[in-house]
Amino acid sequence: MRKKKGLFSKSAAVLAAAVLLYSMSNSVYSDEGMWLYEEPPKDILKDRYSFDLTDSWLEHLRLSSVRFNNGGSGSFASEDGLVVTNHHVGAGALEKLSTAQSNLLNDGFYARTLDEELRCHDLELNVLVRMEDVTEKVNAAVVPEMSVDEAVKARRMVMSELEAEALKTTGLRSDVVTLFQGGRYMLYQYKRYTDVRLVFAPEEQIGFFGGDPDNFEYPRYNLDVCIFRVYEEGKPAHIDHYLKWTEAGLTEGDLVFVSGHPGSTSRLITMSELEHERDVLLPYTLERLNRLEVLYTVWAARSDENNRRAGQSIMGVQNGRKALSGGYNGLLDPELLKAKQTEEKEFLAQVLKSDQFKNVPASFEKIAQADKDSRKDYEAWRLLEGGHAFNSSYFNIARTLLRYADEVQKPNGERLREFRDSNKVSLELGLFSEAPIYDDFELLRLTDGLRFLILKLGYNNPLVQKILDNKSPEELALELISGTCVKSVEKRREIYAMTPEEIAQLKDPMIELARLVDEPSRQLRTFYEKQAEIKKQAHEVIAGARFALSQGSVYPDATFTLRLAFGAVKGYEEGGTHIPFSTQIEGMYRHGEEHGFKPPFKLPQSWMDSRQKVDGKTPCNFVCTADIIGGNSGSPVVNREGEFVGIIFDGNIQSLVWDYIYSDRQGRAVSVCSEFILEGLRSVYGAGNLADEILTGKRAEQ
Amino acid sequence: MRKKKGLFSKSAAVLAAAVLLYSMSNSVYSDEGMWLYEEPPKDILKDRYSFDLTDSWLEHLRLSSVRFNNGGSGSFASEDGLVVTNHHVGAGALEKLSTAQSNLLNDGFYARTLDEELRCHDLELNVLVRMEDVTEKVNAAVVPEMSVDEAVKARRMVMSELEAEALKTTGLRSDVVTLFQGGRYMLYQYKRYTDVRLVFAPEEQIGFFGGDPDNFEYPRYNLDVCIFRVYEEGKPAHIDHYLKWTEAGLTEGDLVFVSGHPGSTSRLITMSELEHERDVLLPYTLERLNRLEVLYTVWAARSDENNRRAGQSIMGVQNGRKALSGGYNGLLDPELLKAKQTEEKEFLAQVLKSDQFKNVPASFEKIAQADKDSRKDYEAWRLLEGGHAFNSSYFNIARTLLRYADEVQKPNGERLREFRDSNKVSLELGLFSEAPIYDDFELLRLTDGLRFLILKLGYNNPLVQKILDNKSPEELALELISGTCVKSVEKRREIYAMTPEEIAQLKDPMIELARLVDEPSRQLRTFYEKQAEIKKQAHEVIAGARFALSQGSVYPDATFTLRLAFGAVKGYEEGGTHIPFSTQIEGMYRHGEEHGFKPPFKLPQSWMDSRQKVDGKTPCNFVCTADIIGGNSGSPVVNREGEFVGIIFDGNIQSLVWDYIYSDRQGRAVSVCSEFILEGLRSVYGAGNLADEILTGKRAEQ
Repeated sequence: MRKKKGLFSKSAAVLAAAVLLYSMSNSVYSDEGMWLYEEPPKDILKDRYSFDLTDSWLEHLRLSSVRFNNGGSGSFASEDGLVVTNHHVGAGALEKLSTAQSNLLNDGFYARTLDEELRCHDLELNVLVRMEDVTEKVNAAVVPEMSVDEAVKARRMVMSELEAEALKTTGLRSDVVTLFQGGRYMLYQYKRYTDVRLVFAPEEQIGFFGGDPDNFEYPRYNLDVCIFRVYEEGKPAHIDHYLKWTEAGLTEGDLVFVSGHPGSTSRLITMSELEHERDVLLPYTLERLNRLEVLYTVWAARSDENNRRAGQSIMGVQNGRKALSGGYNGLLDPELLKAKQTEEKEFLAQVLKSDQFKNVPASFEKIAQADKDSRKDYEAWRLLEGGHAFNSSYFNIARTLLRYADEVQKPNGERLREFRDSNKVSLELGLFSEAPIYDDFELLRLTDGLRFLILKLGYNNPLVQKILDNKSPEELALELISGTCVKSVEKRREIYAMTPEEIAQLKDPMIELARLVDEPSRQLRTFYEKQAEIKKQAHEVIAGARFALSQGSVYPDATFTLRLAFGAVKGYEEGGTHIPFSTQIEGMYRHGEEHGFKPPFKLPQSWMDSRQKVDGKTPCNFVCTADIIGGNSGSPVVNREGEFVGIIFDGNIQSLVWDYIYSDRQGRAVSVCSEFILEGLRSVYGAGNLADEILTGKRAEQ
Repeated sequence: MRKKKGLFSKSAAVLAAAVLLYSMSNSVYSDEGMWLYEEPPKDILKDRYSFDLTDSWLEHLRLSSVRFNNGGSGSFASEDGLVVTNHHVGAGALEKLSTAQSNLLNDGFYARTLDEELRCHDLELNVLVRMEDVTEKVNAAVVPEMSVDEAVKARRMVMSELEAEALKTTGLRSDVVTLFQGGRYMLYQYKRYTDVRLVFAPEEQIGFFGGDPDNFEYPRYNLDVCIFRVYEEGKPAHIDHYLKWTEAGLTEGDLVFVSGHPGSTSRLITMSELEHERDVLLPYTLERLNRLEVLYTVWAARSDENNRRAGQSIMGVQNGRKALSGGYNGLLDPELLKAKQTEEKEFLAQVLKSDQFKNVPASFEKIAQADKDSRKDYEAWRLLEGGHAFNSSYFNIARTLLRYADEVQKPNGERLREFRDSNKVSLELGLFSEAPIYDDFELLRLTDGLRFLILKLGYNNPLVQKILDNKSPEELALELISGTCVKSVEKRREIYAMTPEEIAQLKDPMIELARLVDEPSRQLRTFYEKQAEIKKQAHEVIAGARFALSQGSVYPDATFTLRLAFGAVKGYEEGGTHIPFSTQIEGMYRHGEEHGFKPPFKLPQSWMDSRQKVDGKTPCNFVCTADIIGGNSGSPVVNREGEFVGIIFDGNIQSLVWDYIYSDRQGRAVSVCSEFILEGLRSVYGAGNLADEILTGKRAEQ
């Protein structure tokens, strides 16, 4: 599944083909691109698809698009606040609403009336309503004379101030976003929804049919959908812009658009940054993911209840492992490296022809040096400041409370970013969430985190010894978890109002652990923010040259902000076989049968019972060439008329290299067909009313 | 399950208790001890259990005990060559005899006639028939004036010569074994059986009921048994010494003996060696095991056939991960470290009192220094010489063929140990095994091995670059596996007869890879053999002092050679609950029920169908205090009369710390009851004839 981050491997042939199409310094000719709404690819669409992209068409799609702040996308489906996303994007909320007695993730859910809709503990949804280029404002604050330390502070300050000002003026969530690795800054403003209620979810067995083995594969048969409703002042919110659904179906070659929030790509990074990913970042992350996958799955296997408690953590870890190991394996391919190297050399050769770009070569070197300087303490940084050593929700809460008390006393612009005024609503939503935290799972995670810390920094490391305090990791974790008072949300609210001195008097063991590691953690953070600043300044120079030398449009790497992608509905060839663009419901039953309907290929009872009732010819999933990445999960796919035809939920194996390089030879985005969703609602779940609301765009009076 | 190696974690309380009982420099007072047959604990048995251990009793048990050379133990059960071991010890042989159409591991097996018995591809069984102390002979060859390099060579030479001479004289398999880390050398001679046939195996679902979650847990309900028959000259071998079985049952407090082959313990290592295990050896191994567990289980989940092919590899990896992480977690406990440290300090203080031991302190330092010097290239050594970078059966075969051609030209005493004359039969048994090797699984493993090599030594490492030869790991692995001719056993036999020059002309890609890495691999091997020699010499000095200062008997660390352990049948307290010493068949059904009979708690159909037929009160598994470790799997447990009462298959969680420290407060060895086996044979599997052969010690005329 695609959520937040998605890469992958491919056969050498796939990659070689991708490399041939790869030419970053020129404009984009294929269906490539995660385009900014403020700079849509009008000319390309006109040239390739004879499509006139109008501003009103674009605005309607933008205002119908929703960001799920936990790492996904979605869209409005009715004027009464209905929001459609993926089952795997909603899964975290489903898990938090579940108990040992009522497992919504497993069993599915359908609210027949508004009263039955369940309010989610901590979901935040955003709709992008305003965009402003603030590059000049940001860069005016960060002047060349400044030291790097001063630049870090100045940039943080100006960004926080711009955000605070915008929030104050409009009441909208306001974020300054860094594009082109530092080449541009945009102020994005969002309408924010925090009263989000669950309306419908299918069973996980069909939402994630085929499980980890089928993840990132195609053909697929997933009803990966989940439906929420946003509320304002206790009532369904009235929504002006929502997508009209169509059941007209798709034809090979149809132009479609994807409007969503791709999380992160690495297409514009330098060769040295790519090597840094390969040699430093990915090895650490993959080692950790392998470790957690074993830890969590083994624990989950002990009982159904363990499995329920660890379920979403396992999904997240497996998804990350499959996606990132794909990306890592891609980086071990000499062809990809060579293509990147060649492109960089050619760009540098071009740059050297003009005095205008004389700072560019040194900027490449600065980036390489910054990464080199970042190697030594990289793991310590992730462990301490990243919290991997304290793999515990209680620790995160304790640290947030401890730091909040300190940070809130500083001026807005000087605080750690997460404590800036404009982030207050989001911060409190997480901090005071009533979502259950399970002590047994916490113990498992925290014990392992402490062991991982020992493994990485060494048993005799002085800070490690201070943390362990002459206890075994298990003993210490047990003490921390059984002793902390941050379990209670009420207590958290109390502490949130305390002064640092009052907090110190609590002598809460988890808060005291957070305090013990706070100084070294902050030091590491400061150091890595400094390296990031050096790279931002260098990328600003490189991006400037790229903009100037580019003959066509360019788009920035993904940043989990709203983008428009386009492409054709299109099958592909694999191993001498043609893979049609769409699957059908009857194929889903066959796929289950071929695996003896054994988990994860076991269909839920509802679908087994409905086999004769459903129309087997109904389209299930389809592929298109639109350029997506993790974070696009849940993005609406619309046709030329702007009608909803499906919902992105994955990419195929061949698309996973898109993190570094786009190719539509075989790479495809995978979507759920609108017809599949409607057929399920009507014929399997007895949710005809909900289907009617979607099709009419209006909730029927009940 | 216990196979070869077994450790684990424990609650802090368990360990603290263990530590209290821990006093290595004094004699042994508890049921501790993996005693040498040549130095049995007669006095202790007399004192503690009023038991007179006679030489004839001992000889009978020794000659009835069998070593499974793939890493387990067993015992003779009839004069017609019947051998009983664990299902998990036989599982490798079962897997090799299976095909996509006939899955013996999954479905079980029973040969009703001799004709139906299936010959195993490469099982070797050993019975210890002669023992000779050769310490003086070995040490006479390694004189103080020698350099370490000379000492390595001299020791290898004298050991190989002693073995070759013994083999020539007796025809018996002859191994010189290093005991007390270098304090003593024994020449052990074995009767060897290589025609081993499968007689009976239950389904894996009951052989390994509860799977990984229940592994190393108690109470348990595993019918972990597998029955073979040894043949000589095409007929069942006639066996003089076999164990008489009893169904008389056991009573709390009964004295029992375990005769088997514990694989490895670390009770006599120094503090610095313990830290080396914690900081260097275990972190590497656990990282690799986590990685392989994810790799194999994900691949296995794709289809039943994948699962069959990877099954035993997964079991091995999971068992190792659970056991070793237990041990590693134990080493993170300050109590254990402190106990070890205190003991070492006290020993050193005692030593300093006498001039006789003046070399001892320097010996501790030499060991610490040798380990320190071993750190830098440890991973390279495991990857290259250990073959982790080339995780492939074909690679192992290719390397063996390549090296054999070189080594066989040297005098016996100068060869790499595995190519010494006395090992020829075992070497060829493996090399020419017709056991299936699956190309798809090979590709998965080899690709991953190459990626692990890159991860560990770095992409730009010159040797890594040479190995990759400008290909991606996947591409290279595919080329090697599709191109090698060592797949064919016939071809292997041809190459085995070739000169090095003829082999070079083959230009086989896998053999050429083995050649490419041969020099650096051998260099690493030489270096680590040198470190081992330094440690052996130092341990010889330390062991001498220990022998002299010890007031009672001592026993060496486990070395996968025959040992006698003893103990009492005894329940224990855990979390305020009394755990009775034995479980019963009716408890097994309840345990399955509690987990909804879902895998791995799904009982096989045969047992589901027999629920009314079997006697629910039949004892299932039992625990005792006998001192065991991985490798003891399959060991017979006998009563005072030397009668077979059960078969070791595991230790409980609390026993896993026994790798470093023995305690019988809660730690227990876990066995299958003889009654459970017999009840299964008679009431579930319709194998009454086999039960009769076991009970009468004689095959009925058919």
